[in-house]
Amino acid sequence: MAKVCVPLAEGFEEIEAISLIDVMRRGGIEVIVAGVDKDLVTGANGITVKADTDIKEVKADDLDMVVLPGGWGGTHILAENETVQQLLREMKEKEKIVGAICAAPFALKQAGVLNDRYTCYPSVEEQIGTDGYTDKEKVVIDGNVMTSRGPGTSICFGLAIVRKLVGEDVYEQLKGGLLADYC
Amino acid sequence: MAKVCVPLAEGFEEIEAISLIDVMRRGGIEVIVAGVDKDLVTGANGITVKADTDIKEVKADDLDMVVLPGGWGGTHILAENETVQQLLREMKEKEKIVGAICAAPFALKQAGVLNDRYTCYPSVEEQIGTDGYTDKEKVVIDGNVMTSRGPGTSICFGLAIVRKLVGEDVYEQLKGGLLADYC
Repeated sequence: MAKVCVPLAEGFEEIEAISLIDVMRRGGIEVIVAGVDKDLVTGANGITVKADTDIKEVKADDLDMVVLPGGWGGTHILAENETVQQLLREMKEKEKIVGAICAAPFALKQAGVLNDRYTCYPSVEEQIGTDGYTDKEKVVIDGNVMTSRGPGTSICFGLAIVRKLVGEDVYEQLKGGLLADYC
Repeated sequence: MAKVCVPLAEGFEEIEAISLIDVMRRGGIEVIVAGVDKDLVTGANGITVKADTDIKEVKADDLDMVVLPGGWGGTHILAENETVQQLLREMKEKEKIVGAICAAPFALKQAGVLNDRYTCYPSVEEQIGTDGYTDKEKVVIDGNVMTSRGPGTSICFGLAIVRKLVGEDVYEQLKGGLLADYC
């Protein structure tokens, strides 16, 4: 079973985090919700979610992917937290997958693990400051880096991760079951 | 400021609950997340969310709307819990708005507050057992009853509630900000 870690830092965007966790678990992926220095983590819109473990307990060797939800507050913490940044660098070194949505590709950039082609929330590309941004796709896959755009694309991003880690059949079945025909 | 209650019962569908709360709060609605006999409530996909209050503390007089997330486990509790059912009946008596998504229109039916035209998750209409079901719209509004279909339509449902309770300008702005052009 594929294993993915979703780090949750105070100020995370709730639709993005929950859609990713929900869709991946529906797709048969083992998802570890890892609190960044908190057990009960409150998102950008005041919704508090309980983490499964602390980010310090998470090891790159045990994972297939780390994917970051957006929200500016959460993204700044993910971009500055040494445990998260080290985990992202180890994932890259071990040729595993990293992903981020909305503002959070900025935290991938900070870790030096963002590849050339990517997407993110409109205007965040200015802060990322590299070429290769596109707003033409809901999900961009460049090698081992997957990125997406915002709350409205988060189910599609979860589905794209399921397609990559689990396969086309489960992806198609899940897309129908979620009523996400726009993905 | 419009005030909406989202009851959370064990087994609720996480994308639906969180998308509704998140989108309504972004739209300037005061949202009360009310646990049904629990403070920390775990959804159908193992995500635990902290409630703001207990459903017993919620009064129809203080609210403009009650909206139910789906998930079969949560829906059965909402359909059988007397506090929730009484709240729904009081909302109808006071000519306030009730809403539900996915399996949860079944809980509206149990309370006797579902109007003629409605939508729900495919096949749930068989258990609801009344005419007036449609699968042609993401969101159906019939008088004071709003219904929607599933995880993939939950952002659109939140936006439709914002349009009804807050107005067209905020709806349009929010839809763009969420990158939910498919709604």
